[in-house]
Amino acid sequence: MYYHEPELQYEVTVEEPDPHFASLLQQAIGGVEGEMRVALQYMFQSWSIPATHEPYRNLLMETATEELGHIEMLASAVTKNLRGSPKSPDEDIEAARSATEQNPRQFLSAGESAMPVDSNGVPFTGGYIVASGNLAGDLYANVMAEATGRTLATRLWEYTDDPGMKDMLSYLIARDTMHQNQWLAALESLDDPVPVPGSFPQSEENQEVNYSFMSTRRNPREDPEQPWTTGSSPDGKGEFSFLAEQPGGNEVVAPDPDSVTHDEPEG
Amino acid sequence: MYYHEPELQYEVTVEEPDPHFASLLQQAIGGVEGEMRVALQYMFQSWSIPATHEPYRNLLMETATEELGHIEMLASAVTKNLRGSPKSPDEDIEAARSATEQNPRQFLSAGESAMPVDSNGVPFTGGYIVASGNLAGDLYANVMAEATGRTLATRLWEYTDDPGMKDMLSYLIARDTMHQNQWLAALESLDDPVPVPGSFPQSEENQEVNYSFMSTRRNPREDPEQPWTTGSSPDGKGEFSFLAEQPGGNEVVAPDPDSVTHDEPEG
Amino acid sequence: MYYHEPELQYEVTVEEPDPHFASLLQQAIGGVEGEMRVALQYMFQSWSIPATHEPYRNLLMETATEELGHIEMLASAVTKNLRGSPKSPDEDIEAARSATEQNPRQFLSAGESAMPVDSNGVPFTGGYIVASGNLAGDLYANVMAEATGRTLATRLWEYTDDPGMKDMLSYLIARDTMHQNQWLAALESLDDPVPVPGSFPQSEENQEVNYSFMSTRRNPREDPEQPWTTGSSPDGKGEFSFLAEQPGGNEVVAPDPDSVTHDEPEG
Amino acid sequence: MYYHEPELQYEVTVEEPDPHFASLLQQAIGGVEGEMRVALQYMFQSWSIPATHEPYRNLLMETATEELGHIEMLASAVTKNLRGSPKSPDEDIEAARSATEQNPRQFLSAGESAMPVDSNGVPFTGGYIVASGNLAGDLYANVMAEATGRTLATRLWEYTDDPGMKDMLSYLIARDTMHQNQWLAALESLDDPVPVPGSFPQSEENQEVNYSFMSTRRNPREDPEQPWTTGSSPDGKGEFSFLAEQPGGNEVVAPDPDSVTHDEPEG
Amino acid sequence: MYYHEPELQYEVTVEEPDPHFASLLQQAIGGVEGEMRVALQYMFQSWSIPATHEPYRNLLMETATEELGHIEMLASAVTKNLRGSPKSPDEDIEAARSATEQNPRQFLSAGESAMPVDSNGVPFTGGYIVASGNLAGDLYANVMAEATGRTLATRLWEYTDDPGMKDMLSYLIARDTMHQNQWLAALESLDDPVPVPGSFPQSEENQEVNYSFMSTRRNPREDPEQPWTTGSSPDGKGEFSFLAEQPGGNEVVAPDPDSVTHDEPEG
Amino acid sequence: MYYHEPELQYEVTVEEPDPHFASLLQQAIGGVEGEMRVALQYMFQSWSIPATHEPYRNLLMETATEELGHIEMLASAVTKNLRGSPKSPDEDIEAARSATEQNPRQFLSAGESAMPVDSNGVPFTGGYIVASGNLAGDLYANVMAEATGRTLATRLWEYTDDPGMKDMLSYLIARDTMHQNQWLAALESLDDPVPVPGSFPQSEENQEVNYSFMSTRRNPREDPEQPWTTGSSPDGKGEFSFLAEQPGGNEVVAPDPDSVTHDEPEG
Repeated sequence: MYYHEPELQYEVTVEEPDPHFASLLQQAIGGVEGEMRVALQYMFQSWSIPATHEPYRNLLMETATEELGHIEMLASAVTKNLRGSPKSPDEDIEAARSATEQNPRQFLSAGESAMPVDSNGVPFTGGYIVASGNLAGDLYANVMAEATGRTLATRLWEYTDDPGMKDMLSYLIARDTMHQNQWLAALESLDDPVPVPGSFPQSEENQEVNYSFMSTRRNPREDPEQPWTTGSSPDGKGEFSFLAEQPGGNEVVAPDPDSVTHDEPEG
Repeated sequence: MYYHEPELQYEVTVEEPDPHFASLLQQAIGGVEGEMRVALQYMFQSWSIPATHEPYRNLLMETATEELGHIEMLASAVTKNLRGSPKSPDEDIEAARSATEQNPRQFLSAGESAMPVDSNGVPFTGGYIVASGNLAGDLYANVMAEATGRTLATRLWEYTDDPGMKDMLSYLIARDTMHQNQWLAALESLDDPVPVPGSFPQSEENQEVNYSFMSTRRNPREDPEQPWTTGSSPDGKGEFSFLAEQPGGNEVVAPDPDSVTHDEPEG
Repeated sequence: MYYHEPELQYEVTVEEPDPHFASLLQQAIGGVEGEMRVALQYMFQSWSIPATHEPYRNLLMETATEELGHIEMLASAVTKNLRGSPKSPDEDIEAARSATEQNPRQFLSAGESAMPVDSNGVPFTGGYIVASGNLAGDLYANVMAEATGRTLATRLWEYTDDPGMKDMLSYLIARDTMHQNQWLAALESLDDPVPVPGSFPQSEENQEVNYSFMSTRRNPREDPEQPWTTGSSPDGKGEFSFLAEQPGGNEVVAPDPDSVTHDEPEG
Repeated sequence: MYYHEPELQYEVTVEEPDPHFASLLQQAIGGVEGEMRVALQYMFQSWSIPATHEPYRNLLMETATEELGHIEMLASAVTKNLRGSPKSPDEDIEAARSATEQNPRQFLSAGESAMPVDSNGVPFTGGYIVASGNLAGDLYANVMAEATGRTLATRLWEYTDDPGMKDMLSYLIARDTMHQNQWLAALESLDDPVPVPGSFPQSEENQEVNYSFMSTRRNPREDPEQPWTTGSSPDGKGEFSFLAEQPGGNEVVAPDPDSVTHDEPEG
Repeated sequence: MYYHEPELQYEVTVEEPDPHFASLLQQAIGGVEGEMRVALQYMFQSWSIPATHEPYRNLLMETATEELGHIEMLASAVTKNLRGSPKSPDEDIEAARSATEQNPRQFLSAGESAMPVDSNGVPFTGGYIVASGNLAGDLYANVMAEATGRTLATRLWEYTDDPGMKDMLSYLIARDTMHQNQWLAALESLDDPVPVPGSFPQSEENQEVNYSFMSTRRNPREDPEQPWTTGSSPDGKGEFSFLAEQPGGNEVVAPDPDSVTHDEPEG
Repeated sequence: MYYHEPELQYEVTVEEPDPHFASLLQQAIGGVEGEMRVALQYMFQSWSIPATHEPYRNLLMETATEELGHIEMLASAVTKNLRGSPKSPDEDIEAARSATEQNPRQFLSAGESAMPVDSNGVPFTGGYIVASGNLAGDLYANVMAEATGRTLATRLWEYTDDPGMKDMLSYLIARDTMHQNQWLAALESLDDPVPVPGSFPQSEENQEVNYSFMSTRRNPREDPEQPWTTGSSPDGKGEFSFLAEQPGGNEVVAPDPDSVTHDEPEG
């Protein structure tokens, strides 16, 4: 069950409103690297955790709840970049018009507000959310989400010169540093998770190719002697090898379709 | 530039055709955990890599090329499950009808063939693909993709009793073991990648909250003393701490919108 | 069964072609507030109405048919804004280039024509259409569709200075006025529709919380004494009350998953 | 800023786990009528409200926060329907298999958990969310959302015989009753909102057709004398009339495209 | 401008209501091969045609208008398959339950009505619509749409045993025969349309490879002497040849990214 | 099974990097007319072809494999347009900023790289892919794909003045010429494919309307005596005729819904 207070988690100020930056901030709200994704991803992951793993359930839900507050901060930043300049009535329409240059819908559909879309106006989708039921897989998904999220935030930080926006982003970047670290710490706390899923008996997987790098070069080449072609594998369960060629099986051929499919071209 | 041979990478046989299993296999073709996603993801990542990181570019592209062959194996498995039973002309329509029970489009739209959709018939989307330009972030995305992909493959393996399908899946599961390990090995070969992106100066991030777990419980609680609230952080650059409360900034409030938005409700 | 005449419902003229405005008009064609949505929404609603409610079926279908003509008017406005300027052959490519500034696909994919997409180029989707089978719910959906549609049209009207475009929009705005009113009139003609669906016996709903505002503030506050916390409810069937706290049930906890899901992280 | 407690808003129990019902419940989580939509819709609407309308901002945000808790209740109901039966290890795979009959991804992708998708497995999309910036339009969108949401909940209530599920749904139906009423009360509290947007000067709209029902029958018919063709309009600002024919403007014709579009078919 | 009459274009009767068939019919309404696609596709194509090609504009619009009537026929077929059985009040819920087996939303979201979705419940999308501005390209798109549409209709015809449904489908199949032929006749009436677009000067295209089949086999093979490797090309402008190898250009390599992208992985 | 060599199929050079052109090139990568669509479309079609039609299976797969290489060429062109200018460190941020003008995600999400999206940033979708199982229908889909693809390429060619880009496009345009011709040659090699599907007995289709043009004009008009209203049909199996009116069947009317749908509006 959730609760709210009208205070933001961290203050959001804009010195020089910039409608173009308002459109870029949408990526951090409704984009694949954005806060809607992480908030909902951590929630759905949390709801799949059984009683035996309570500390992980709490970890996921408390972080999900924090991320909701980050959507709020960014939505506030959007309205302040779109609406924030004091202006005479005569300047109104020009301000609105400039808002249509990048994401017309921030003016046309939302009346100068934030939207659940990315920086190209593509709607947020549940397809971004990874909640596999397997905790280790989910934690890797979370490291990835925070890694791409922090990368996005640093690019926005590079883009803007506004001190208020730089300060807000430096806060969000710091939180992403923490969140990357906490998911890695949670992964380290698991007992032998790799290869994911850890509970599948490896004896059932094909033993010929489970630690071999198969080159797919047309013209076979020498072992490049990279950390992924030689030496022990990171899971500590195998030795990497290099196969210059793919092994090859039978030829691909589809059985004849049933006549009622009318797949046959002839009349 | 790509090349092809009609041989499959590994043989695909089906002893007892099962149209329902054909619909489930779609998840491994066009689903978020599927082979279309990894093949294309590794390609796009490879195309962003500059000359300075050639071994990674090769690693990504050679694996992408292998994954194309996995789509092919799975597509072959789908037609063999849909069309494979020898049957009298009279049984044709019943076979086709049974194919509509789970994914009607395998019969209606594809004439008993594989499709670029998931097991619910939702089309594959480029929105699944992560190619951030940042190599470390991309490698974490790849670990995650292989972790959820292997989890999917083990669930399909549990589902089916067909020896041919179990054998094909045991091959794919083994390849996912290799791929998880190779991406982890590539991550280990990078110099100090966490927090991602490593090139952003951490001095620019907010120093108050970059290694603190902020609890979002309504009713403040004790430090649970978990690996993510105490001790050194996995990146070796900070000490975890626990904040029982979120800090709080100014109140969220939107500036007045421009009059031309007609946001005001009154007439 | 449908018919067509080549005449538009209302004349469409453009004095000063404006490719950027052509991209904004797409919102009124293929956007969530646009004419494709209302035309198809009213059609699908009409097709669900049984013989007992014939006047509503006619109302819905006649309005749907009018809306088809509005798509046509807007498509005509788009081509006139994109192609309308008399120009020398030399100016051709510059005109086409300027058309790529906002929605490149109006040039690249459509050869300077209207498209079934919104102002950001996001395709129209059937997911916008509300046709619930319940007439009262559908009529509220229609009021909403016309309210947001008229708001969009007024924002486009504010944006443009072109007399032809302003005249066309003043026509469409007027039709939206009518349509808002007709759906409200239809709602008023229904016998006791709120709460929707009216046919569900209210005695079956939880009697403790069906007219209570539950505050979700973290820090409980006083009843704000608003029209939604005190007094009679608009449906005339209850008295509003204010609960300073959410009631609370059992703790959320997921049962253990089956072993074949491989949800367990450990190896 | 948000907070959470592990307690559910209302208790969720399942007596007879039913995997098929688990797939239907997805409609109330990630479907267009579901709780993700209302939670996020009310949030985004709240973030667009300026200081002058604070009570509405609070109303929207407090309700949004409650709706987050409804997603949680439903996600709990899904895991209890998928995983809830005590079973022998031998029965595991059969339970999982039965879970693939309707929504295979609840087993394949989520390990028997809830997902951010609808009952057909189509992902939730931000395209469902209406937050127009105009308060009256948004409130009508909210009435509609609660009307279709309550209709969905009553259909789920009719479907299930499980006492725990019926009890949970009777709670959610009651909350939808309240929410429909609160949005209507908020609409009534606005000063003259129809036609939306109220601030657009109606003198600018076409005065010939703003209160006329235009019949689109091919064969003109008599005025059916319905509440939407005669009498005062609900906004109190016009008198309905009936036009047996659409007026008609100029013919639709596209200007010649620029030569660089290569629209011309001839070689 | 459009008109409507309540009569269907062809009568629709159902002798044995079949809820599963109702879900399959959705493919012909909102699927990629369905009537929503062709109706809208032909409309948008028509709106792009300039005055010089009036007969084609009429051809497109008159056919578009007919296709609207086909959506109506199919929507009627859906309600008759879902609702059509006379039943006692006690049987109501069982009928509704059976409707949830394939497409739960026909019951849950639409109250036993047709929806703008395909047979898997995936919403119709404007992304299906091809309206390129180039008439010859559009006509080929229309041949394809009718070819896949007729194939779908024959598969539905094979599936059902209901005489009413078979009769309706035999009507729609006949119309698809006509439409395939009319688009081919229109293509034949164009002056030299291939290669599309015909107005691009072929002298500007690379003359080395414009009529050569380039084999992409890994192991080069002999010319298979097929109609696409030897002889005159169908456009009458070239002679086919066979290249056993792809030519090959420079190596793919991305330039170094700007430092502000933070693409570099190292810290 | 697939193979790769690091060489491009044809060289890609950029003299004057143009970030705006980089955003337009996305249409040829991830757009409906783009190379991802044709590569995957031909693959899925190939996988459905039985042994009896081996030359077509090879034709489809070899062309699919070539198209993969075209995605690679275009991705290379994108990075060269985004990153290619030699610049001082100070100019970095300006270069990155200019990249956000059209498609912000090329900078924000991809670090100045190509993405699997179209020129408006809309993700590639499997919904673009046509693979019907019927060879003739698929070949028409391929003619259409190459026709709209070549049209797109000529528009990009017109847009750019860069000699390198013009040269690359002239290569791709030439390949589209070949591919249009090869699909037409393959169609000609089929025995009597029209109307598609050729194997459905035409005697089962309605014989009254299978070669008649039905006018849908509101006001009936004379036979326009066009190639599609008179003379022999292109399939050689009928004579075109002109019907000034649609025939008309019974009235559309939905049966009463079951009571548990709660479709009835009254309380």
